[in-house]
Amino acid sequence: MAERRYVIGVDFGTDSVRSMVIDASNGRDVASHVAWYERWGEGRFCDPAKNQFRQHPLDYLQGLETSIRAALQAAPEGTAESVIGIGVDTTGSTPAPVDQEGRVLALREEFSDNPNAMFVLWKDHTAVEEAEEINQVARTWGGTDFTKYEGGVYSSEWFWAKILHVLREDEKVRKEAFSWVEHADWIPAVLTGNTDPLIMPRNRCAAGHKAMWHEEWGGLPGEEFLIRVDPLLKGLRERLYTDTVTSDQRAGGLTREWAERLGLPAGIAVAVGAFDAHMGAVGTEIREKTFVMILGTSACDMAIASSDVVGDKLVAGICGQVDGSIVPGMVGLEAGQSSFGDVYAWFREVLLWPVRNVLPGLKTSDGGALGKIAKEIEDAVIDRLSEEAAKITPEESGLIALDWLNGRRTPYADQLLKGAIVGINLGTDAVKLYRALVEATAFGAKAIVERFHEEGVDIDQVVASGGIPKKSPFVMQVMSDVLNVPVRVSGADQSGALGAAMFATVAAGLYRDVGEAQNRMGSGFLKTYKPDRKNAAVYGKLYEKYKAIGTALEDLLRK
Amino acid sequence: MAERRYVIGVDFGTDSVRSMVIDASNGRDVASHVAWYERWGEGRFCDPAKNQFRQHPLDYLQGLETSIRAALQAAPEGTAESVIGIGVDTTGSTPAPVDQEGRVLALREEFSDNPNAMFVLWKDHTAVEEAEEINQVARTWGGTDFTKYEGGVYSSEWFWAKILHVLREDEKVRKEAFSWVEHADWIPAVLTGNTDPLIMPRNRCAAGHKAMWHEEWGGLPGEEFLIRVDPLLKGLRERLYTDTVTSDQRAGGLTREWAERLGLPAGIAVAVGAFDAHMGAVGTEIREKTFVMILGTSACDMAIASSDVVGDKLVAGICGQVDGSIVPGMVGLEAGQSSFGDVYAWFREVLLWPVRNVLPGLKTSDGGALGKIAKEIEDAVIDRLSEEAAKITPEESGLIALDWLNGRRTPYADQLLKGAIVGINLGTDAVKLYRALVEATAFGAKAIVERFHEEGVDIDQVVASGGIPKKSPFVMQVMSDVLNVPVRVSGADQSGALGAAMFATVAAGLYRDVGEAQNRMGSGFLKTYKPDRKNAAVYGKLYEKYKAIGTALEDLLRK
Repeated sequence: MAERRYVIGVDFGTDSVRSMVIDASNGRDVASHVAWYERWGEGRFCDPAKNQFRQHPLDYLQGLETSIRAALQAAPEGTAESVIGIGVDTTGSTPAPVDQEGRVLALREEFSDNPNAMFVLWKDHTAVEEAEEINQVARTWGGTDFTKYEGGVYSSEWFWAKILHVLREDEKVRKEAFSWVEHADWIPAVLTGNTDPLIMPRNRCAAGHKAMWHEEWGGLPGEEFLIRVDPLLKGLRERLYTDTVTSDQRAGGLTREWAERLGLPAGIAVAVGAFDAHMGAVGTEIREKTFVMILGTSACDMAIASSDVVGDKLVAGICGQVDGSIVPGMVGLEAGQSSFGDVYAWFREVLLWPVRNVLPGLKTSDGGALGKIAKEIEDAVIDRLSEEAAKITPEESGLIALDWLNGRRTPYADQLLKGAIVGINLGTDAVKLYRALVEATAFGAKAIVERFHEEGVDIDQVVASGGIPKKSPFVMQVMSDVLNVPVRVSGADQSGALGAAMFATVAAGLYRDVGEAQNRMGSGFLKTYKPDRKNAAVYGKLYEKYKAIGTALEDLLRK
Repeated sequence: MAERRYVIGVDFGTDSVRSMVIDASNGRDVASHVAWYERWGEGRFCDPAKNQFRQHPLDYLQGLETSIRAALQAAPEGTAESVIGIGVDTTGSTPAPVDQEGRVLALREEFSDNPNAMFVLWKDHTAVEEAEEINQVARTWGGTDFTKYEGGVYSSEWFWAKILHVLREDEKVRKEAFSWVEHADWIPAVLTGNTDPLIMPRNRCAAGHKAMWHEEWGGLPGEEFLIRVDPLLKGLRERLYTDTVTSDQRAGGLTREWAERLGLPAGIAVAVGAFDAHMGAVGTEIREKTFVMILGTSACDMAIASSDVVGDKLVAGICGQVDGSIVPGMVGLEAGQSSFGDVYAWFREVLLWPVRNVLPGLKTSDGGALGKIAKEIEDAVIDRLSEEAAKITPEESGLIALDWLNGRRTPYADQLLKGAIVGINLGTDAVKLYRALVEATAFGAKAIVERFHEEGVDIDQVVASGGIPKKSPFVMQVMSDVLNVPVRVSGADQSGALGAAMFATVAAGLYRDVGEAQNRMGSGFLKTYKPDRKNAAVYGKLYEKYKAIGTALEDLLRK
């Protein structure tokens, strides 16, 4: 029997970290464990009213240790000795201030309770003003628009905006912060004992998608630009980085100290980190011409294209475009819809209004019985709508909806846009409305695919993962019919951790590249939805109408 | 004590006829009775699948006798002797074929069971093709467009279309039909013994609004035009009428025979008839600058203007414009919204989908209890929505809806249009949607008022009657705010019968004109809603947005 080799994929999420021990020969999940962030769970360092969300570095380090140890504990004896590498993905952009040694400031006594000395979590929106200022300067300063490969709109969720916000707000942190580091870079740096901010590997994914790093201008945005945004940024560029690395690279070897803490062999490969969505795309077997959709409340879409196809060309209107950000050697393209499952959840809430607001007040039945009835209706309503909506044909509703209920992320980001339902008559019922909303989310996806297509990036299949694909065959079939390509539901339960594990195998030298790792370790697909030819033809026309209605209403929706 | 004088208002509706004995001095309802149509109640002569709805003349005559006798029976002794006149309103256009003596063919033995020999009820839609042909010829034949004072679109519910349909379909009727008569003309003709089709008074209201009669072309449409529509119409024009009469005129005196049948004095005045909506407008005290809205599932709107204001000018885009059709001496203007209460009913049905489709299948409670709960929710939902919607401000929903769920009747009729809801975000709830729909129906009304205004017909108050005004203070307040005029809820419970009674007093010579009758006999108003200045200002802006969205979507909605 051949020697078994294992890798560990570590997936840092918003509330917890999951470590999965994976058989490198076939991708099988041998054991895994989820450790919840302790301080985060107590709500410390956050202020939801201000959209301030900070995470303490100890939550990460303790969670990392707990989850890996517990996963190994659950694995067959002898597994730990055969682990050859660790891969890490995290949320992002989630940067923290570090001192000259690369220590996150909150790890120092005097900053241990200061939220500004911690990781600024991806969903922290305290830097709205700073993002706006960055956009203003980028558009008007007369030099390069450094936001252009990030969709042309810099977000308050991203690196520079967050840094600037903290620098402005906290003088003490400003004085002590030598540099800043993304969560995805800091974990491999710690594990490999290479935390010097000036030399630790910085991952291409975070740099290119969130920090305006691009080869075109030799790295991060120019000093002149940054000073124009705010003189407080002066000198920081030099204390960050110029070069970036893809996640198939070895960040270093596991230190003796961490090997002991984790119960693993010292010196094994630790791969360069990356963001969860991107490693998740690899875990769901992203390839050229594959459109990976992570479908939850919103939709996060990814594609990769060879440089032959994209070259230096800018795919306008999408969120981001970075060479090597998803799969090394390929240009990673990122897009998304600000609301996806949220559109259905919205309609569900509308329909449940009588159940939530009229039913509880009825006097003829007791509260307990009514509560139970309400709960049962709430649980069943989307399934029942889907069942009925699947029975009608694409043109039957006569409706076209716009899916911009939470603004539009891509193509051409515009937060001011809103949704609409057009073509209502007295025969329009809840089922038709629901179907129209599902179609709208698929049209939204098609608008993105079409944007890619117009720039020469073809898509011939969709791989869907996330909460919705397994729950809603109806949505998947509509998606396939509208896009007119097969939609495959990823079999990967934990695509982030699996993707991180795949990178670990390459960093460890077991596999040549990510493609080989995917071939060996991919989970395959649970189901493939194929387009119905007739429906696809109808949707071709309806999509044109969707676009025409969007164009007709765009200016009016912004007001 | 002054001698009391009474009049009888007879209101022929779709299912029944109501006779009201009214004190002519003050309009008080002394006694009334409703008689249901016997044959109609049995569903005879109708074919709902074909939209064929016919009524037997005996239903009318028997109902007339029964209702008047029973009303008099219920009135104090001696009332019958003091009745000085009878007024009649009916549905319309509801024409029937008559022989040379003015007998409706169905009253003859050989036609007694033939639906084509009966009254073709207003809502009979068997003549869709014929209406289309009339429109085609009117628009293309090169001569006068005879539909122009009827909104430019001839309907399948109207006189000529129905006649042509029956003539084509029934050779026997074609041979025996000497002429045709509206229900509203036939009843006074029978009561006064003046049924000769060539000389019986024909009311201005039916002629002008439904038969393309206009002084501009000397009466009914020219023979050449009618023959162009179909040679079957040849010669009919001469056997119809040239002159028309307003309803303040005496059609004649009650015949001895009918006086006996009804228990009334012979020779008392019988006024010329008219359509229910128009006499209802008089009953609700229509005056110059008053916009009367009859608000039910749809909205029927009326206004009157002096000839000084309108003159020969065509108020484009409305349903009809006929000198003297509502109040003699004034131009009667008719408009409407194809869906009004139906818009709210539609939304109610959408919201009740889970209650109707999920709740009944729940297994944890017994069917009886569930049925009761469902019923209670159904009954309460619109009231509860109204309560909540009244609490939010006009701009709060961020939504604009288009009210064309059943097409648009006015301004500028277009059956192909549909409704829309624009500006949805994830915070849009059922209450906001409901408010937006109510606002949309008010914007639809404003579009009509604005059309009038543009042609110099000013509106400074609304009088609302029908089912909705008493039920929904919320809708009335929004209407007042949107139109920025006071909205008064009519106190007349039976405005049709009351209006008919007012006309009877003038025909009997008791009052000088309709205005005097209204002053003496009007029921006044239950409540006046006054516009909120702040809301009215906001709605001024939102109405502009409603129009802009309508304009942007019109072409797309037609497809």
